[in-house]
Amino acid sequence: MTLISEAGSGVSGNKVTNHSEHLYWQEPERELSLDERAALLLRYQRVRSETESLVDPLTAEDMQLQSMPDASPSKWHLAHTSWFFETFILRIHLTGYRIYNPAFHSLFNSYYNTLGKPFLRPQRGLLSRPSIEEVFAYRSSVDRAVEQWLTEEDVFSEQAKLLVLGLNHEQQHQELLLTDIKHAFSINPLQPAYREDLDIEPGVDEVSPPEWLSIPEDNYTLGCDVEIFCFDNEGPAHQRFQQAFRLSSRLVTNGEYLDFLQDGGYEEPRLWLSDGWSRVQEQKARGPLYWTRVDGDWFQFTLAGLQPLDLSAPVCHVSFYEADAFASWAGYRLPTEFEWEIAAWLHCRRDAADRANMLEARNFQPLAEVEPTGDEPQLLGNLWQWTSSAYLPYPGFRASADAVGEYNGKFMCNQMVLRGGSCITPKDHIRISYRNFFYPHQAWQFTGIRLAGELP
Amino acid sequence: MTLISEAGSGVSGNKVTNHSEHLYWQEPERELSLDERAALLLRYQRVRSETESLVDPLTAEDMQLQSMPDASPSKWHLAHTSWFFETFILRIHLTGYRIYNPAFHSLFNSYYNTLGKPFLRPQRGLLSRPSIEEVFAYRSSVDRAVEQWLTEEDVFSEQAKLLVLGLNHEQQHQELLLTDIKHAFSINPLQPAYREDLDIEPGVDEVSPPEWLSIPEDNYTLGCDVEIFCFDNEGPAHQRFQQAFRLSSRLVTNGEYLDFLQDGGYEEPRLWLSDGWSRVQEQKARGPLYWTRVDGDWFQFTLAGLQPLDLSAPVCHVSFYEADAFASWAGYRLPTEFEWEIAAWLHCRRDAADRANMLEARNFQPLAEVEPTGDEPQLLGNLWQWTSSAYLPYPGFRASADAVGEYNGKFMCNQMVLRGGSCITPKDHIRISYRNFFYPHQAWQFTGIRLAGELP
Amino acid sequence: MTLISEAGSGVSGNKVTNHSEHLYWQEPERELSLDERAALLLRYQRVRSETESLVDPLTAEDMQLQSMPDASPSKWHLAHTSWFFETFILRIHLTGYRIYNPAFHSLFNSYYNTLGKPFLRPQRGLLSRPSIEEVFAYRSSVDRAVEQWLTEEDVFSEQAKLLVLGLNHEQQHQELLLTDIKHAFSINPLQPAYREDLDIEPGVDEVSPPEWLSIPEDNYTLGCDVEIFCFDNEGPAHQRFQQAFRLSSRLVTNGEYLDFLQDGGYEEPRLWLSDGWSRVQEQKARGPLYWTRVDGDWFQFTLAGLQPLDLSAPVCHVSFYEADAFASWAGYRLPTEFEWEIAAWLHCRRDAADRANMLEARNFQPLAEVEPTGDEPQLLGNLWQWTSSAYLPYPGFRASADAVGEYNGKFMCNQMVLRGGSCITPKDHIRISYRNFFYPHQAWQFTGIRLAGELP
Amino acid sequence: MTLISEAGSGVSGNKVTNHSEHLYWQEPERELSLDERAALLLRYQRVRSETESLVDPLTAEDMQLQSMPDASPSKWHLAHTSWFFETFILRIHLTGYRIYNPAFHSLFNSYYNTLGKPFLRPQRGLLSRPSIEEVFAYRSSVDRAVEQWLTEEDVFSEQAKLLVLGLNHEQQHQELLLTDIKHAFSINPLQPAYREDLDIEPGVDEVSPPEWLSIPEDNYTLGCDVEIFCFDNEGPAHQRFQQAFRLSSRLVTNGEYLDFLQDGGYEEPRLWLSDGWSRVQEQKARGPLYWTRVDGDWFQFTLAGLQPLDLSAPVCHVSFYEADAFASWAGYRLPTEFEWEIAAWLHCRRDAADRANMLEARNFQPLAEVEPTGDEPQLLGNLWQWTSSAYLPYPGFRASADAVGEYNGKFMCNQMVLRGGSCITPKDHIRISYRNFFYPHQAWQFTGIRLAGELP
Repeated sequence: MTLISEAGSGVSGNKVTNHSEHLYWQEPERELSLDERAALLLRYQRVRSETESLVDPLTAEDMQLQSMPDASPSKWHLAHTSWFFETFILRIHLTGYRIYNPAFHSLFNSYYNTLGKPFLRPQRGLLSRPSIEEVFAYRSSVDRAVEQWLTEEDVFSEQAKLLVLGLNHEQQHQELLLTDIKHAFSINPLQPAYREDLDIEPGVDEVSPPEWLSIPEDNYTLGCDVEIFCFDNEGPAHQRFQQAFRLSSRLVTNGEYLDFLQDGGYEEPRLWLSDGWSRVQEQKARGPLYWTRVDGDWFQFTLAGLQPLDLSAPVCHVSFYEADAFASWAGYRLPTEFEWEIAAWLHCRRDAADRANMLEARNFQPLAEVEPTGDEPQLLGNLWQWTSSAYLPYPGFRASADAVGEYNGKFMCNQMVLRGGSCITPKDHIRISYRNFFYPHQAWQFTGIRLAGELP
Repeated sequence: MTLISEAGSGVSGNKVTNHSEHLYWQEPERELSLDERAALLLRYQRVRSETESLVDPLTAEDMQLQSMPDASPSKWHLAHTSWFFETFILRIHLTGYRIYNPAFHSLFNSYYNTLGKPFLRPQRGLLSRPSIEEVFAYRSSVDRAVEQWLTEEDVFSEQAKLLVLGLNHEQQHQELLLTDIKHAFSINPLQPAYREDLDIEPGVDEVSPPEWLSIPEDNYTLGCDVEIFCFDNEGPAHQRFQQAFRLSSRLVTNGEYLDFLQDGGYEEPRLWLSDGWSRVQEQKARGPLYWTRVDGDWFQFTLAGLQPLDLSAPVCHVSFYEADAFASWAGYRLPTEFEWEIAAWLHCRRDAADRANMLEARNFQPLAEVEPTGDEPQLLGNLWQWTSSAYLPYPGFRASADAVGEYNGKFMCNQMVLRGGSCITPKDHIRISYRNFFYPHQAWQFTGIRLAGELP
Repeated sequence: MTLISEAGSGVSGNKVTNHSEHLYWQEPERELSLDERAALLLRYQRVRSETESLVDPLTAEDMQLQSMPDASPSKWHLAHTSWFFETFILRIHLTGYRIYNPAFHSLFNSYYNTLGKPFLRPQRGLLSRPSIEEVFAYRSSVDRAVEQWLTEEDVFSEQAKLLVLGLNHEQQHQELLLTDIKHAFSINPLQPAYREDLDIEPGVDEVSPPEWLSIPEDNYTLGCDVEIFCFDNEGPAHQRFQQAFRLSSRLVTNGEYLDFLQDGGYEEPRLWLSDGWSRVQEQKARGPLYWTRVDGDWFQFTLAGLQPLDLSAPVCHVSFYEADAFASWAGYRLPTEFEWEIAAWLHCRRDAADRANMLEARNFQPLAEVEPTGDEPQLLGNLWQWTSSAYLPYPGFRASADAVGEYNGKFMCNQMVLRGGSCITPKDHIRISYRNFFYPHQAWQFTGIRLAGELP
Repeated sequence: MTLISEAGSGVSGNKVTNHSEHLYWQEPERELSLDERAALLLRYQRVRSETESLVDPLTAEDMQLQSMPDASPSKWHLAHTSWFFETFILRIHLTGYRIYNPAFHSLFNSYYNTLGKPFLRPQRGLLSRPSIEEVFAYRSSVDRAVEQWLTEEDVFSEQAKLLVLGLNHEQQHQELLLTDIKHAFSINPLQPAYREDLDIEPGVDEVSPPEWLSIPEDNYTLGCDVEIFCFDNEGPAHQRFQQAFRLSSRLVTNGEYLDFLQDGGYEEPRLWLSDGWSRVQEQKARGPLYWTRVDGDWFQFTLAGLQPLDLSAPVCHVSFYEADAFASWAGYRLPTEFEWEIAAWLHCRRDAADRANMLEARNFQPLAEVEPTGDEPQLLGNLWQWTSSAYLPYPGFRASADAVGEYNGKFMCNQMVLRGGSCITPKDHIRISYRNFFYPHQAWQFTGIRLAGELP
C-alpha cells in the first residue's frame, strides 16, 4: 500500500486545483508560460499582503519587540522575508537588479552562514533603524522587482520553485510573527491584546470523550515526493513498517490538563523525562506558559489579552516535556510522527484544511472540538501536535549544496517533530506530510497534545 | 580654613543669583510666596521642556531601545521622571489629585522598594505599551497638575524642596537618556547618529602638556550644607585632613591613551587592579568602549555616528579599571574625591560651569582643552572624572526614613565616585560638591581621566 | 526474516554457554536451585572484584576527583554500585537486613527520585567523608550480605534477575570509572598516567581503506527479547523496514580525522549541524577532546598519559557533532542504530566480543584495525560508535512502574544512541542489541566514528 | 597626638620583646648576626610546624577538598606556602639551589601574574597529584633548604624581611586553611567535625549590654611604619582628622542577630544596601551562612560539627551586607576602619592579643564576651569585624615594583576592610594596624559585627 500515490485524494490535493504548479513541478526544467507567471504573481501578492495585514493592529513600537532570543521582532520578520526573495531570486535572476541596501544583507540574514555572518539573533530587538517605514519601503521595492521579474523576464521552473519556497517561508514567518508578539505582550504587565475584538467566549460547556482511530499494522509509504511543493525535509517518500496503534480523535482539553495539574502532575518526577523534570525544577513551572492564577481562578493570556481559562478548549502552549508527562499520567503516550501521518492519510477528508480552525478563520485561538468523530477527526489546524519523534532526516535525505540547503537539514538534532498546523497557520501552507520542529522545552508556539496508544 | 563658608564664591554660588531658593532653603518650614512659586514653575517648565527637546531627534522605535540592563529606554526616562513628581508630590500634596494610571505606579518605579515591587529593570525595553504618545500625554497631565499645584495651592518650603529634588532628578535622567541612546545606537551595525549635524572636527592639532595644581597639606571642610539644593550624599559638610598633593590641570587625551594601548597596556597585568585584569581577560578588551579599528585606523562611535579618533580630545568612556591602569602606566594615580573637591574650591572660577563644555553647548562630545592652565583649570564639564574614592557615606550621613531615603544611600557600596560633570550634564545641575557614582567596570557614561600625584 | 530467533547464533549467544541464566530467564517465577545460586555468586564475585582491580592504580585522592558534573569520583562509583544491591535487593529480600548507614541512602543514590532526593550530582567530589576505607568497608559488608542471601535464603528468579541487573549496572560503572578518571587526570598539568606500564606503541604504519558491507532492503526484526538478560531499553523486539545501505568495515582513523581538521573542517559551518556549530564557536574547539598540539606535533592524552597521536588508530573522544561533521565532509553519513544492528546480526561471528579489543585485554586504548574485512568486520569493541539515531523508546516499550523503572526510560530525550562497546567495556557486558546513549556534545566516553551510506 | 610614636606601648609592642627583628628592621641594609639568624630559624620552624599541626585531624581526601572558587584545598595551602619561600627566597638567595619541581612553579602560584600564568584557581581541587605525601616531602625539602640558608649563608636584613613576610603569609594561610575546610565540611550531609573533642558548651547564659567607648574629635596618626614587620597596605603612617564617635565594647551576639531575623530583617529592603538586597533575593538567604533550622530549633555548623546556636556567643559568618543591615536595624552603624584603629590604640592593653580568643587557644569558635568593659574592650580576637571602609590605599601608598608588589595593592577595589583578628588568627600575627579585606558578600571567614555611632 503506497499512500503517496493517493495524494490527489489527500489533504494536499486541494492545492492541485488551486494552483497550476503541478503542471511544471515534476517536469524537466522549462520556461513558464505567461499564465503560469500570472498565477504565481497573484499568489505572491496574496501572501505578501496577508503578512502586512497581520501587523495592522501593531504600532511601530510593538513591531520592534523581542522578548527572548527565540523570538524576533515583527519588523524583522517583515524585512527578513523580503530579504529571502532578494537574496535567492532577485540578485541572481532579475537582470540589472541592484541590492536595495547592502547593510540589510547581514541585518536580515537569519542563519545562512554560507552568506556571511548574520547579525546576532538575540539583538534583533535593538534595531530601531531601519525604521518600520524603511522596512515597508524595502518590502515595496522587493515587491515591485518581483513583479517586474515575473512580468518582463523569462522565468524557468527551477526559479519558480524558489519563489514558491519563498512564499512558504513567508507563511512560516506569518505564524512566528504572531507567536512572537503574543510572547512579547505577555511580558507587559498591561497585558495588551493583539486584537480587542476577538470572540473568545467558550463555545461549548463540555467536550465528549475522544474516539479512537484504530490503524492496522502494515508497510506504509510516507513523506512527500515532488508533484507539488513540499519542504526538503518531508522527503524522500519512503517505506516504513508500522505496528498497529490507535490515535485519539481530538486534542487534550484545558480541563483535562487542569486535572493533571491538580493531581500533582508537576510534583511527581516519575511522570517526567529526566530533562523535563530538571526544567520544571529550575523554572518552578506549575502550569503551561501563559496560564496564571488570579484569586483562585485560572486565566490564560491570549491574543485577545488575559481571558478566563476555557476548560473545553484544547490545552495550548505546552512544551514537549509537559505533553509527554501528561500522556504518562493519562496512561497513554504521544504518537510518533509516522503514526500521525498514516492516520491522517487514512482519515482526513480532502477538504480537511478548509474546514479546520486555521489562520484565515481569524480566531487566533484554538477552539473546542465539539463533535470529534472517527469519521472526521480534526487532525489539522487548531494546534500543532507534539509527536514522540525526534526530528531526523528521512532515509535518503540530502540537503542541497547551496545556501538554501541550510533551510532545514542543519536543525536535525535535539528537536522534536510537531504535526498538523495550528489556528494561526495559513490553510494552504499545511500538508499531511508537513514536519514542524521545535526544541522539547519550547512552548511559545501554538502547541497541543494528541494521545496515542496500543490497540486494546 | 573652612571652605564651605566660601560657597558664595564657589561654583554653586552662581545658583544663588539664579534662584530665590536660598531664601527659604535653610529657614524653618514656611509657606512660599507667590513670586517664589512662580520662579519654581518657570524652572520646572524649563527643565521639563529641555528633556523633551533631547528626544526630538528620536523615533518612537529609538525611544524604546534598551541595549543592556544598566540602560533604560528614552521612553522610560520620560515616564519615570514624571512618575517621580506624581508619586512624591502630586498624590500627596495636590488636593483631589487622582493617579493618572495605577499600572504606571509599578511600571515606572525605578528602585523604590518602599513603594512596592518595581517592574523588572532588564525588561524595560519590552514595554511597547504605553506608547510614546501615551507617555507624552502622561507628561502633559503631570505638568498641568504641577502647574495647578504651584498656582492654586499653598506650597510649603519642604514641598518646594521635593520639587527641586525632582528637577535635579530629571536632569540626571537627561544625561542618562543620552548615554543610553548612545549605547543602543552603538550596537546597531548601521551606526546611526543621534544628530547628524554636530560639528565634530578636531579643534586643535596638539594639546599642551598638563600643568599641575599644587595643594598644600591642611584641614579642609568638604561637602555641602543646606543653603541651596544638594543631594543628601553631598553632606554633611565635614572636616578632613588632607596631605599635600598635585592635580593635573587637564584631562588625559585620546592620544595619550593610545600610547598606553600601543605600549601593551592591555597585556600587562601588573598595571591593573586584580578585578580589572579579570574583566580585561574575560572580555578580551583592547581599548575603551566605542573605540574600533577599521583598516588600521582608529575610530570612535559618537552621538554624531562613527568618527575618526581625535587624538587631542580627552579620552572618553573608560572604566575605572582602565583609568586606574592608565594612571599606573603613566606613573601617577587618580585623585581622591576629596583632593578633587579641594582643588576645585581653591581654583574654580565662580562662572566655571558657564564657561565649561556642558549640555547647553550642545556639543555632545568632549572637546580638546586648548590652554589648560593652573589659573583656570577645566575641572568642570567635558567628562566625569574617575576618582580613587569608593562611594561611601560622609561622617554623620543618615538617609531620610521615607521613600526618598532610597535615593542615594543604599548605593553606597561597590561603586566609585566621579566628579565634575560632563559635556551632557546641564550646567545648573553640577556642583563642586557633586558626587556621581558608578561601578568600576562601567564605561557607558561620559567618563574620563584626570591624574594626580604627590608633590615632587 | 526474524533475526531475534537466531540470537543463539549471534554475539550474545556466547553468554548462553557461560551462564545458566537462560534456564530460568523466561520461565515462570520459580525458586533457584543451589547450583544456579552458586553460579550467580561466582559471577557476582568476579564482577565486584573486577571493579576493585580497576582502582588499584589510584590513590585515595585520585578516587575523590570529580572534574565536571557529568563525571563522578571513583569512590562514588564504588559506593553507588554497592548501594544499588543494598537498595534493590538486600533491604527487601534479605531477612533481617539492616541498612548499613542511613546517610548513604541519599549520598549514593544517583537519580532515583522515587527513592528520595539524591545528593546533588555536581557536588559528589566534595565528599571526603566517608573515606575510601569506609567505602571499601561498605562494599565488603554488602558483599557478605549478598553471599549470605545467595547461600542461605530462598532466591526466586525475579530476584535473580535484579541481581543480574545490578551486575550489569556495575559493569557500566566500571567503564564510567575509567572515563571519569581519564577526564580528571587530563585537567592536571602533570598529565598523570592511570597506568604507566601500558604498551602504547603504534601497531601498524598504515591502515587499509575500509571495505563496505552491503545490506539489502528488507523487513528485519530488531531488539532483544528476554531469553537472556538485556536492558529494558533494548526491547521489545520488533519489526522494522530497512532500505538497502552499506556500512564501513572499520572505524575512522586519527589520520583521516586529521585530514578533516587540516582541511578546515572546524571553520566550515556548512559541514555542521546548527547546534554543533554553536558549540564549536563557543568553545573555540579545534580538535577532539584530549588532542593537543605541542610545538607543531599532535599529541593525545590517554590513560597512559600524554602520547604522540597514532595516525593509524581510530579517532577517539569525538562528540556526535564532530562525528556527523566528519561524515558530511567525507561524503558519507553516520549509520542509524538499526542499520548498525542489522549489519551486526548479519556479519558478526559468534565469538566477536572475545576477539575484540575490550576491557579484559587491558589496552585501555583503541587499537588500529589492521585487516578490517567484510568477512569479519570489527563492529564490537575498540570504540562506541555514534549513530544518527536519537535515543527513543522502541514500539511497545514501557518502563516498569517501580524505582528500577527510572533506569533507562526517563533519559529517552535529547540523547543519541551509540553502539558496539569500547576498549574499556567488559566483554560479557556487550550485546548486539545494546543501546548506549549520550548527549550529542559529550566526548569524554570512548566514542568513535563508523561511516555508512547508500548503495552505490 | 601621634599614636604611632606610642606603638611600643600598643598591641604590636609585645612583638618587640619576642623578636629581635626591631634591631635591624629600620636600620640600613646589613648582614644579620648569628643570633639573629638563629632567632629567625626558630620562628620559621614554629610557624611551619603550626601549619602542619592544623592538618593533623584531616585525611588525604579532606585535604583535597575545594568547595568553592574562593576556597582552596588544605593540600594547596601546604604547598603554596612552601612555594612562597622557594620562589622569593631560595631560588634567589640560596647558592646552588635547584627548583624542587618546575611544574610546581605554576601549580602553586596563587596570583602572581608577574611569575607566569598561575594554575586556574577554581580547579585547585582537581589536583590529586602531587599526593599529600609529595607535598609534605616538598615542604620538608624547602624547610631543609631554608635551614641551610639561615645557618650556612650570609643573610642580609632585606632578605630577612622577605622571610618574615613569608611567615606572615603562612599564618594567613593557616587561617584560610581552617575557614576553607569548615566550608567544605559544611557541604557534606554527614556534617563532619574538624575536631570532635572541642568544648562547645555555652559559657554564659546572658551577655551584658555593651558599654560604649567614647572617642573625641582630633587629628590622629594611623597606620604602621616600619620598626617591626607590617604588610605594605598598613602604611604609610599618616594623619587623619576624626570626628568624635563611640564604639561598642563588645560584638553583636547570636541572640541579638536572631532578634533582627525574627523581626523580619531579611524581608525589609529598606534595611539593606541595594547590592545586598539583590543578593538576599537571589540566594533566598534567611540567616547567616552555617545557620540552619531543624524542627524549629536553630543550629550552626562549626568546626565541632553541627551545634545548637549559642545565643550568648557573638554572631559569626555574616557578610558585610548582613552586618550593615543589622546595624541599620539596630539604629547604629558599622565603624570605619579608622575609628576602629583609633579606639584600639587608645583602649587596648599591651597584652590584649595574649588575653584574646585566638588560634593558640584552640577554641576554633568565638566565645561569649562575659564582661566586656570600657576598661578592657575585647577588640582583638574572637571575630574579624566588618568596617564600613572600602579597602583603599593609604595616602602615599605605593606597591613595590617586583612580584611581591602584587601581594596586596592590586586588590584595593570592591572589598571592605575587616579589623581585629579572629579565634583562628595566630596571636603574634595580629596587629592594631592590620587590615584584612574581603568582598562584601563573603561570609565564610570568621566575621562578626561591632557597632558604632555618633556621640549621643
